[in-house]
Amino acid sequence: MPFAGKGANVIDGVSKLAVKDTKDAKKKDSKPQPTEKDLLRAAMTGVMERKLFIIPSFKIYGGVAGFFDFGPPGCAVKQNITQLWRQHFILEENMLEVECPAVTPEMVLKASGHVDRFTDFMVTDAVTHDCHRADHLLKAALEAVKADDKQTPEKKDEVEGLLRRIDELDAQQLGAALTAYEVTAPETKNAISAPFNFNLMFRTSIGPKGDLTGFLRPETAQGIFVNFKDLLYYNGGKLPFAAAQIGQSYRNEISPRAGLLRVREFTQAEIEHFVDPEDKNHPKFSSVEDLQPLLYSRALQKDTSKQPEAMSLKAAVSQRVIANETLAYFIGRTYLFLVQVGINPQRLRFRQHLDNEMAHYAEDCWDAEIDSTYGWVECVGLADRSAFDLRAHSEASKQPLQAYTAYDKPRDVDKLVAKINKQAIGKTFKKDGKPLLEALEGMKEELKDDKGPLACARDSFSREGKHSISAGGRAFEVTPEMLEIREETQKESGKRFIPSVIEPSFGIGRILYCMFEHAYYQRESSEEKTVFRFQPAVAPLKAAVFPLVQSKDLDEVARRISTKLRRAGLANTVDTTGTTIGKRYARTDELGIPFAITVDRDTLEGAMQGSVTVRERDSTSQVRVPEDDVADLLRRLCSGDMGWADAQQKYPAQAAPSE
Amino acid sequence: MPFAGKGANVIDGVSKLAVKDTKDAKKKDSKPQPTEKDLLRAAMTGVMERKLFIIPSFKIYGGVAGFFDFGPPGCAVKQNITQLWRQHFILEENMLEVECPAVTPEMVLKASGHVDRFTDFMVTDAVTHDCHRADHLLKAALEAVKADDKQTPEKKDEVEGLLRRIDELDAQQLGAALTAYEVTAPETKNAISAPFNFNLMFRTSIGPKGDLTGFLRPETAQGIFVNFKDLLYYNGGKLPFAAAQIGQSYRNEISPRAGLLRVREFTQAEIEHFVDPEDKNHPKFSSVEDLQPLLYSRALQKDTSKQPEAMSLKAAVSQRVIANETLAYFIGRTYLFLVQVGINPQRLRFRQHLDNEMAHYAEDCWDAEIDSTYGWVECVGLADRSAFDLRAHSEASKQPLQAYTAYDKPRDVDKLVAKINKQAIGKTFKKDGKPLLEALEGMKEELKDDKGPLACARDSFSREGKHSISAGGRAFEVTPEMLEIREETQKESGKRFIPSVIEPSFGIGRILYCMFEHAYYQRESSEEKTVFRFQPAVAPLKAAVFPLVQSKDLDEVARRISTKLRRAGLANTVDTTGTTIGKRYARTDELGIPFAITVDRDTLEGAMQGSVTVRERDSTSQVRVPEDDVADLLRRLCSGDMGWADAQQKYPAQAAPSE
Repeated sequence: MPFAGKGANVIDGVSKLAVKDTKDAKKKDSKPQPTEKDLLRAAMTGVMERKLFIIPSFKIYGGVAGFFDFGPPGCAVKQNITQLWRQHFILEENMLEVECPAVTPEMVLKASGHVDRFTDFMVTDAVTHDCHRADHLLKAALEAVKADDKQTPEKKDEVEGLLRRIDELDAQQLGAALTAYEVTAPETKNAISAPFNFNLMFRTSIGPKGDLTGFLRPETAQGIFVNFKDLLYYNGGKLPFAAAQIGQSYRNEISPRAGLLRVREFTQAEIEHFVDPEDKNHPKFSSVEDLQPLLYSRALQKDTSKQPEAMSLKAAVSQRVIANETLAYFIGRTYLFLVQVGINPQRLRFRQHLDNEMAHYAEDCWDAEIDSTYGWVECVGLADRSAFDLRAHSEASKQPLQAYTAYDKPRDVDKLVAKINKQAIGKTFKKDGKPLLEALEGMKEELKDDKGPLACARDSFSREGKHSISAGGRAFEVTPEMLEIREETQKESGKRFIPSVIEPSFGIGRILYCMFEHAYYQRESSEEKTVFRFQPAVAPLKAAVFPLVQSKDLDEVARRISTKLRRAGLANTVDTTGTTIGKRYARTDELGIPFAITVDRDTLEGAMQGSVTVRERDSTSQVRVPEDDVADLLRRLCSGDMGWADAQQKYPAQAAPSE
Repeated sequence: MPFAGKGANVIDGVSKLAVKDTKDAKKKDSKPQPTEKDLLRAAMTGVMERKLFIIPSFKIYGGVAGFFDFGPPGCAVKQNITQLWRQHFILEENMLEVECPAVTPEMVLKASGHVDRFTDFMVTDAVTHDCHRADHLLKAALEAVKADDKQTPEKKDEVEGLLRRIDELDAQQLGAALTAYEVTAPETKNAISAPFNFNLMFRTSIGPKGDLTGFLRPETAQGIFVNFKDLLYYNGGKLPFAAAQIGQSYRNEISPRAGLLRVREFTQAEIEHFVDPEDKNHPKFSSVEDLQPLLYSRALQKDTSKQPEAMSLKAAVSQRVIANETLAYFIGRTYLFLVQVGINPQRLRFRQHLDNEMAHYAEDCWDAEIDSTYGWVECVGLADRSAFDLRAHSEASKQPLQAYTAYDKPRDVDKLVAKINKQAIGKTFKKDGKPLLEALEGMKEELKDDKGPLACARDSFSREGKHSISAGGRAFEVTPEMLEIREETQKESGKRFIPSVIEPSFGIGRILYCMFEHAYYQRESSEEKTVFRFQPAVAPLKAAVFPLVQSKDLDEVARRISTKLRRAGLANTVDTTGTTIGKRYARTDELGIPFAITVDRDTLEGAMQGSVTVRERDSTSQVRVPEDDVADLLRRLCSGDMGWADAQQKYPAQAAPSE
């Protein structure tokens, strides 16, 4: 659950849409002045909305907070990123991809812990009943105190300490702090309620009867866990293997401010890599061990004078900064992926979770954080979650979710073994007992140390003389007569165990947003000229084709080139509007299109006949290329086979075309 | 709304999962014998589940009706089909792709009509309160009467007539018929309630306050309609243009039986092609006009002695069988797409909606229906929906959703024109009036005939002296003083109008399921050997690579070839299990993998050194190919550049390898 949003250094607020800042509480009656970063963000998101990269959803109806559409170029960029992800992780690593529904029955999310614990603390305005996140209000109040020159250093230290612990506070502590700092509702300044838990899942009801509660999944991971047994079988019963899912997840945020970072419906790409807990080495670790991402370890974070440090993954594993090779391998692969889609590696760090951030079962967790105008944004969570998830579903579903590996030589193992008395079951449940028998078949034996379903049944037997087992949608009361459980020491040639899972979990929308920020710039020649320096593979279109002036002959050539590019898999657009070439270049720059092809009079006649100009977006330099070469040249430039410098070597330079 | 499910000739029921047949009511106490088609389907879906093409969702928890996962090979097939769709429609036609959330606020679906009318008639069991679809129960009862030899011909005619009209019956008529035919609940035989409307949308609540109702979208189309204004702007204000969306839609079916045809969460791919209602010709119609799909026109359906007829689209348009070129163009493109993904053109027909099936606003509707073991299954809906959708959203949102086209020469046009009195508005609403002013700016004038927002305001003024306008999330009471509306005759150089929309709407899961049925066969040599003859572009993997026997040397070559194929974009698997080559071929056949590459001893030494065998799935014939050629050969075979016969010409034949 890497996007539970606790601890991420994020303040939302984008562009034309109402920017509500958590710092509102700071100055009681005046809006804070926008910072340089705020202005930069407003300018950029303005372009994003004008060019339809994003559109506030249901805009003609006034919009709904926390929902965004991707318009045509945004949709293309998002698909390109997703496709690169699929190539980089799923295809390259032979992962098993699955697609599961978003609507999920309660029992699955009860087992995973989301029904009980996927919550934020909320407070309500005593008069308007508007809802606010309790931690956000407290944080804003504390930051106001911190910024207030009239406060004593002692007070500021107290506030600083509280700010650091804000995510650890329980309802009572949070309530006490809100009272102590006299926090009121933002804007109205009304009194607020005590903090209480609000579950962030969208709830619905499955089927017409209304008796089956469902939720929209808050993460895609659970679909993989519940399919573990089938996926292991598909993989020939062998570990390690990884499964992956790309799809929509849903979080009913209490008060999402505008912006792409905290939305209520978003795309996740999640990997569950299942391994033997006793062997978390990775066969391909050597391929990433020399990478040196910025690591912000627990130790560095605790020392306020320290910054994140570039460190080779090899050193990080050998010095036990990162818990194991597999986790480090995925940190390396994640680094390569993010840089490939256009994240500036200088603005990317991997931050280790502090002890108080990690769940008790987690072995080690790191977040890929990307620097943006919002501060450092958590975009990928990489966690060694041990056997927690599989164990939870195994217990709740009564289906053993285990793997088997052979020992080098046989060993003695203590086990619980069950004998199923079919006669006794038949006598009690008659024909209805079939699902029970099937369930029991699946739990015939287990390791004594595993504390699995048999251990659970044995405990119930000794406590109450009976045990309840769910199967086929009903509960069966099972007696020791039906299920005889005994201990045995067996010689075993291998072990059966619940695998550990290493989970890299990507927030595609957040990566996309940060990528936009890193790609955005203004041309120095003119303040008005916005450019997105998208990587060619990520750019929504690879080329724009222009007839220099409006002419049927030039249009025809332009359309022919466009078709050739499309056939070569290069999405492109033809602009025959005949406005100045400068304006048309500016349009392609705003869409981040890497190459512009101009068809001019020289294309039709003279010494240059049959050639066109190709302009590279960032250098704005141009070369003259035979029409027949264009598709192949662009394919190579976009795939990274060839750089622009190579193209400049191969083809003659061309001055910017005259109008 | 092409999948409202009315009128589709579908009976669900798949494989291992409980097959409940609507024909249950036919024979009171005995299950009907499975037909040959039932057996075929059970065998095929058995393979689909065993090979993890599909997995009943949440299976370890007993599953939930109407939800399916795609396992690894199913996920790949689905993505291939979706990608081909994107290529065939979006890229080839330069459509504007968007991605909108599934969670949709009530106002949008109120405007579209779904809140009020997206319903099925339901009855409940008087004792168990189980829910059933009223029409399904009636249909089963009527079919039992029809099949009963003891009934008179008159009775049978009456039943036949009722069966034909079953989708037109209202609640009262349906209730009367259920009573007349003494219909009881299936299985329990208890009395049933009177039929009542059940809305098929999943309902949820957006935000923590609970005051904003949302639904999971029942179709992706609405996201496009609400973005029409921005999309038109993006397209330079020009018609025609098409927008498209691929995504999940949701229908809370009353009693979905197992099977992929009626599920509660499914992938749709929808196109909205916006045109001038006065010009529905299509510039590329000539590219499809000679296609001759099977057309089942209204006239043919009314004559029970007639069958669907192959007819050129050109003839169909000129004879007014199909309403216009644009609709016919999309029928042609749909035909080409379905055949490309592997639908047998002999088992594909386009059926025109009867008058009673069409909404009052629709100009013409056709369904692409595919023959399967369930009968003819509606997989694509193609409808000319006139201006209905844009008009509905324009009225509900008070935002004009219009286009403009220039006339050849200026014309006189009657209009309503508004004068906005900013002073009066400022006086009443002070600073709060800003959103109102913005809304009014957008409705400055309209065609008198359009009955748009100004006409609506004028009516309110004359009736009540005021008019309510929603803007910025609140309602403003506007007076004639603030908004002066007068009629004017203007000379116009063009017209402003609400475009018509032609909507091709694809159910990806249904197409996928029918494609599986058309691809499925048993090898004649042996009853046990299942093959899916997937088109190479659709197949989950393009190749399997086998070392003939277990050997480090052969494994190394196999892995090298696998890597080369992957680099060439060809998903593949290496099988080093060392089981018999026959068994490994059988495994690839079950996954529909088109090519198997075997590395044998001859690869390493002798006259054939450096060459491997390539086997084609359906002919099972083999050729011997140099290792260096393999990736390029497969790329050509998979893209359709080259056929297997060409490969057989180019490379020497090879006998099946000896073990």
